[in-house]
Amino acid sequence: MQGNRILPEEKVFKDPVHRYIHVRDELIWDLIGTREVQRLRRIRQLGTTFLTFHGAEHTRFNHSLGVYEIMRRIIDVFQGRPNWDENERLLCLAAAVLHDIGHGPFSHSFEKVYDTDHEAWTRRIILEDTEVNAVLRRMGDDFPEKVAEVIEKTYDNKLVVSMISSQIDADRMDYLQRDAFYTGVSYGHFDMERILRVMRPTEEQAVIKYTGMHAVEDYIMSRYQMYWQVYFHPVTRSAEVILSKLLHRVKDLYEKGYEFQTPPRHFIGFINNEITLEEYIKLDESVTMYYFQMWQEEEDAILQDLCRRFLDRRLFEHVEFDQHFVMNQWSELRQLFIDAGFDPDYYLVIDFSSDLPYDFYRPGEEEERMPIHLLTSDDRLRELSRESELVEAISGKKRTDQKVYFPKELLKAAGSDATKQRIQEILMDRGGA
Amino acid sequence: MQGNRILPEEKVFKDPVHRYIHVRDELIWDLIGTREVQRLRRIRQLGTTFLTFHGAEHTRFNHSLGVYEIMRRIIDVFQGRPNWDENERLLCLAAAVLHDIGHGPFSHSFEKVYDTDHEAWTRRIILEDTEVNAVLRRMGDDFPEKVAEVIEKTYDNKLVVSMISSQIDADRMDYLQRDAFYTGVSYGHFDMERILRVMRPTEEQAVIKYTGMHAVEDYIMSRYQMYWQVYFHPVTRSAEVILSKLLHRVKDLYEKGYEFQTPPRHFIGFINNEITLEEYIKLDESVTMYYFQMWQEEEDAILQDLCRRFLDRRLFEHVEFDQHFVMNQWSELRQLFIDAGFDPDYYLVIDFSSDLPYDFYRPGEEEERMPIHLLTSDDRLRELSRESELVEAISGKKRTDQKVYFPKELLKAAGSDATKQRIQEILMDRGGA
Amino acid sequence: MQGNRILPEEKVFKDPVHRYIHVRDELIWDLIGTREVQRLRRIRQLGTTFLTFHGAEHTRFNHSLGVYEIMRRIIDVFQGRPNWDENERLLCLAAAVLHDIGHGPFSHSFEKVYDTDHEAWTRRIILEDTEVNAVLRRMGDDFPEKVAEVIEKTYDNKLVVSMISSQIDADRMDYLQRDAFYTGVSYGHFDMERILRVMRPTEEQAVIKYTGMHAVEDYIMSRYQMYWQVYFHPVTRSAEVILSKLLHRVKDLYEKGYEFQTPPRHFIGFINNEITLEEYIKLDESVTMYYFQMWQEEEDAILQDLCRRFLDRRLFEHVEFDQHFVMNQWSELRQLFIDAGFDPDYYLVIDFSSDLPYDFYRPGEEEERMPIHLLTSDDRLRELSRESELVEAISGKKRTDQKVYFPKELLKAAGSDATKQRIQEILMDRGGA
Amino acid sequence: MQGNRILPEEKVFKDPVHRYIHVRDELIWDLIGTREVQRLRRIRQLGTTFLTFHGAEHTRFNHSLGVYEIMRRIIDVFQGRPNWDENERLLCLAAAVLHDIGHGPFSHSFEKVYDTDHEAWTRRIILEDTEVNAVLRRMGDDFPEKVAEVIEKTYDNKLVVSMISSQIDADRMDYLQRDAFYTGVSYGHFDMERILRVMRPTEEQAVIKYTGMHAVEDYIMSRYQMYWQVYFHPVTRSAEVILSKLLHRVKDLYEKGYEFQTPPRHFIGFINNEITLEEYIKLDESVTMYYFQMWQEEEDAILQDLCRRFLDRRLFEHVEFDQHFVMNQWSELRQLFIDAGFDPDYYLVIDFSSDLPYDFYRPGEEEERMPIHLLTSDDRLRELSRESELVEAISGKKRTDQKVYFPKELLKAAGSDATKQRIQEILMDRGGA
Repeated sequence: MQGNRILPEEKVFKDPVHRYIHVRDELIWDLIGTREVQRLRRIRQLGTTFLTFHGAEHTRFNHSLGVYEIMRRIIDVFQGRPNWDENERLLCLAAAVLHDIGHGPFSHSFEKVYDTDHEAWTRRIILEDTEVNAVLRRMGDDFPEKVAEVIEKTYDNKLVVSMISSQIDADRMDYLQRDAFYTGVSYGHFDMERILRVMRPTEEQAVIKYTGMHAVEDYIMSRYQMYWQVYFHPVTRSAEVILSKLLHRVKDLYEKGYEFQTPPRHFIGFINNEITLEEYIKLDESVTMYYFQMWQEEEDAILQDLCRRFLDRRLFEHVEFDQHFVMNQWSELRQLFIDAGFDPDYYLVIDFSSDLPYDFYRPGEEEERMPIHLLTSDDRLRELSRESELVEAISGKKRTDQKVYFPKELLKAAGSDATKQRIQEILMDRGGA
Repeated sequence: MQGNRILPEEKVFKDPVHRYIHVRDELIWDLIGTREVQRLRRIRQLGTTFLTFHGAEHTRFNHSLGVYEIMRRIIDVFQGRPNWDENERLLCLAAAVLHDIGHGPFSHSFEKVYDTDHEAWTRRIILEDTEVNAVLRRMGDDFPEKVAEVIEKTYDNKLVVSMISSQIDADRMDYLQRDAFYTGVSYGHFDMERILRVMRPTEEQAVIKYTGMHAVEDYIMSRYQMYWQVYFHPVTRSAEVILSKLLHRVKDLYEKGYEFQTPPRHFIGFINNEITLEEYIKLDESVTMYYFQMWQEEEDAILQDLCRRFLDRRLFEHVEFDQHFVMNQWSELRQLFIDAGFDPDYYLVIDFSSDLPYDFYRPGEEEERMPIHLLTSDDRLRELSRESELVEAISGKKRTDQKVYFPKELLKAAGSDATKQRIQEILMDRGGA
Repeated sequence: MQGNRILPEEKVFKDPVHRYIHVRDELIWDLIGTREVQRLRRIRQLGTTFLTFHGAEHTRFNHSLGVYEIMRRIIDVFQGRPNWDENERLLCLAAAVLHDIGHGPFSHSFEKVYDTDHEAWTRRIILEDTEVNAVLRRMGDDFPEKVAEVIEKTYDNKLVVSMISSQIDADRMDYLQRDAFYTGVSYGHFDMERILRVMRPTEEQAVIKYTGMHAVEDYIMSRYQMYWQVYFHPVTRSAEVILSKLLHRVKDLYEKGYEFQTPPRHFIGFINNEITLEEYIKLDESVTMYYFQMWQEEEDAILQDLCRRFLDRRLFEHVEFDQHFVMNQWSELRQLFIDAGFDPDYYLVIDFSSDLPYDFYRPGEEEERMPIHLLTSDDRLRELSRESELVEAISGKKRTDQKVYFPKELLKAAGSDATKQRIQEILMDRGGA
Repeated sequence: MQGNRILPEEKVFKDPVHRYIHVRDELIWDLIGTREVQRLRRIRQLGTTFLTFHGAEHTRFNHSLGVYEIMRRIIDVFQGRPNWDENERLLCLAAAVLHDIGHGPFSHSFEKVYDTDHEAWTRRIILEDTEVNAVLRRMGDDFPEKVAEVIEKTYDNKLVVSMISSQIDADRMDYLQRDAFYTGVSYGHFDMERILRVMRPTEEQAVIKYTGMHAVEDYIMSRYQMYWQVYFHPVTRSAEVILSKLLHRVKDLYEKGYEFQTPPRHFIGFINNEITLEEYIKLDESVTMYYFQMWQEEEDAILQDLCRRFLDRRLFEHVEFDQHFVMNQWSELRQLFIDAGFDPDYYLVIDFSSDLPYDFYRPGEEEERMPIHLLTSDDRLRELSRESELVEAISGKKRTDQKVYFPKELLKAAGSDATKQRIQEILMDRGGA
């Protein structure tokens, strides 16, 4: 076991969100230099969101450094306080750098279509034969396992887990600020400096001094606004819909034995569910986009069309619908699409916001992350939503909406007049966006 | 001729630099929607700079919208003033959107190695059979030609040319602010709002009212600082060196008949200098990176190594050198590299900052863009560097430096002890970075 | 009637909040130059808040220019739209500059103690023999009256009134941002640029397009946070308590015939309620502070002490109390203060947050300003709190708290041990802030 | 000797420039609470500048806390490094809080007219019978003297002196940023975080690591721009001219035995040069402004007029002049003013920018503060202007301008037509601002 060394000179990254990111530990410096971490440069933080907000071209590499920096600052505050074990420092920092290491390109769509699980890949990249693993093992043979446990939330020091996976952790604090910065929306700002200063370690989790309640309220409001303004933006969801359908089409064609001009070599492992670690690591967004480029020339009209739509940003339009409607008119609508010459499996898509992977603040739900606790001056803990009327007002509410996505131009271009008119009636006259 | 239509509702892009980008003209909206403009989403604004400043992942699409927005604001100021012809409005806006349309992936390296010229491609994309051309032609058959002329600086209304190509134009004002924003450096800020307010049209060029001189000084200082802090950053230049050598290697291998496992299909046109417009448009950074990914597995050790270096950010180190040294010790050094097992054509590289494509403020140089003029209250023009001691101090100076780039780790790993020691003596004991 | 003239050259004020404030109308320029408006430079915008937030030294002059600028931008958006009458432009702008003209030094305390009314003074300054009146009359003899009506909310064009006095008006939008800027708190920011862009004139009021709902939510959240974090800050309220008691003491002493070393010449009109306009205009914060300086040397121990406390920021401490307590223990506590040698009329003070002059969003309350309405795409109006669950959650709630303020050091310094102990028991052992 | 105590809980001030100001030492907390420091709340940081930039209403209290905070951060960087003696910590912090303690209202004008010296008053407030002195003496009887020496630059640890009085010190770094923030100008920003990180203690002074040269260049540019854009702004100088003349008039009248309606009680000590410490401390800007208010009613026309001009911001206009002109036409011009009924001693004023108290970077001048030194990687020191072509370009240059100030409206209102015309010829036809 080689251990960690303090670098002779501190390394500094210029970061537009946190201004500077400071690295003093050789372990962290070397982790950042591994090919698995560098690969995150080729995976966007917000997937298809760049098609809605052109500024959102930032990558998971960018975010991972940010989470690391916040973690470093939290530890600075915790140092010397009760419940904080300085021996956990490097573990926290390493987990921060690596917490998203298992993500592939456009994770959300890939996971949905190909049934992969980025958490399983995180574990494998940390524990199997990778550069990351080699660096981590310097700290001891059990160190990789501990890092994996922290990220999986099974590590026995719950405080450590909470610093990266709770309702107010280094991960969320970075992504809210970073995503707000790059999209350019005016929400997403909160006073992190103050939150860090009033954060305190307890045995179970990092908590916030009561005097910092308003800063936390502001943070929760930021989450709320980012949730609806950015993460659930209907245009982004449209891009996700097209991407998912595209991946489905590749799978269907492959399984049907379609002869690709550009065979989906990098996708076959995914489709067959027998992908190797090496293959997984190689699939980044550049590679994915390469195939989409090539498949614009495939003979299959649907694959060709979906690739062009994705690359040239010719997205589907959407209208909102209620549950009731879906029950009653769906089969008619599908038939109308068929009549108009469009396969409804690809061109008529329902999307529920509740499918999306961003959690909002929902204290008390079973599977949920631990809620935020405030620490009173006499050392009692109070759950945030019971103290703040603002947070209480918006927590626990699941505002699900459902939208139908479809290529609007079809209404003008295809099918008989009667078909067009009926589609128009059902879809458009209900007052879509 | 279909002409332009005012959109029924203004379209707005959220932009982190200019906050909002406003589009009211259907012509502009449709131009932005063309596949050739959308393709700029897949080409980074600052090439390899993201390997130095991880925030600099922004694309040319991002920048093109920004230049458009500044142009729109300049026109707002010019409206109704002498010398401004409102009929040039759409021409200016279209040229702003399209001014970088000819750029390919990592333009600087590609142009150097494969001898292409993004300006020629700009002309072809505007004038030949593209979606961009189809949209432009709605304004008249000669409109594409006029747009091309503005971008090429041959258009006869010199004022219009100066708004996009002068020492203080929409292009420069956007990229300085945008690159500063995304890299996170604290330079690059200046008071554009004030500059726009004091900008005035003359027959020959856009000029600045004398009272705005300090704001312009600040802008020139920003350029100066961005020039040295960002555009000429030695780490970025190291990444450029590796990329250029990689492209060279592909060319050399191809010309020697090397059998690629992944043949450089998208590169062959470049190498043979017979690339079609369609091929050119298809080559974006995703495609390029796909090949680099694949070539990590090629048998050729140099190609393999350079691809891995580029993807995993294992860059060359650099030391500074004087002219004198290069004359005297270069051949010895090359031989030492050969002795150590490294091909000096790929692993020992001299780079001059003056090779780089960013111009600084050099009034009076022959091939130079028109210098900035100040407009006095009695309507005389004065050249900026004669009025401002600050600008005078830094203009016209060509601070060229030359650096030698090489893989530092070789000193430890390869060659005899004597070889290593001599390389060390020559390269390292001179006080490199 | 002389009317208005467009200035030969636009005048620009540099403003740290709105960057630039633009004046093109001679009427406005001359209004700003009147002694009554210049006098606002000597009256702080936030009264005693500078004793809590040292940055909050900005004046009502500062704010008045800001409201003017926002009004100017709103009018820019309204121009040419239905329901907007361009003839109201100068009236709106003049009302914006003058809306706070009647305020005196530390208005809140002065009004409470001396029963003056800044709204009545606003009317007099606009209508009687002042420089402001002379400038306004250039626009017609009825113009001053119209300006006064707009500020008093009795003007018959309700849209005009709403632009300066509604739940989302130029006044509120300026003070939230300005007070946040100068105090340095991180709340108070919202996307005014977006709100202005989606503001629309109706017959009854300025409304917000439905698509801007999230920006308005953010604005309401800012108000909520500023309300509790800044406007109701207990330390500011402590300074208000001391100032009010000081003013009371002056009144009491004067009425009792106390012989002042520095007679309260500028206060006598207030005390006797027969102050002239000229006297009112002369009383600014400098004059007030001059007396406080001088009265530090008065023989009356209470006046002396309160002046020193105010100048040297030796404020009262506070504890929170419930209604119940006040009923039961108040008379005992007063007696204990008397025993300890402190006049409880001056040194034991209850303060209710609901006494404070800042309104929060309470749609539907009788005396309340008109609530915010959203304008749907099919031109219907919807009240904000019925559409936004966030706003609904916090509106209409009157979170009154009551605090007891007193000089804490008395517990240590005066009275018998038993007195001290009992005071301690009642006041301190209940868990004050 | 009571010494210092660490506060049980850190105190935090919200500051709009540095976000938070942290106080952990009881000594510092108590110093800030003294009446002499609190008095700085009543003295503006930039004197009459608020008449040019309405945002610049910030006080010396505000600035003093800012200097303290920067000093605290510098010490954080120095801790544990060679040449830094941790025993100097509290001395540095106390000197930072107190460095401006001797300033009175509108210092520059008062000092010029009444020949006082704020540095002498600083010494007296620190060493004589004041609350400040009482707090300082807790650290030892010689501690006040040491604090005074640091501020006077005679303390024997030159490093300590340089931290508050050098070309790049806590004082300058605060005021540049703070003045930029409050005026709203876009200059004045530099990367202080970076400068602090590369600051290093040497025996003689705080120096900057060579790698930080560009950040220091940016700081020097900020100084340069603030110097010309803010500190030497001709409108501010006009207000200073009026204020100085007003103070002169008071002195003249007093010495001539004029019977004031409101006798200049607080000024007599200044005029007679026998002011006591207690009197000095009492004179703040409120008191000064009170007199100006009262003197608007004095019979003396000049005093009355100057007071009204100052309060109502009716400033003098200015034109620029060359030396030559002053020699030749001055006496004619004076006579013309007399003919027009204006006392030229009060209404025709020459002002030189070089009279102003702000120093710019002038390495090598005798009386000058120590220049900035850069520390190379091999531990040599290099003077900044020899390394940076930017700094070299602007240092050492004394761009003196001279302006003549006078009430422009006199040209229209007074004297014979011939007089007016000749004044016009001399003053206005030369192309003033």
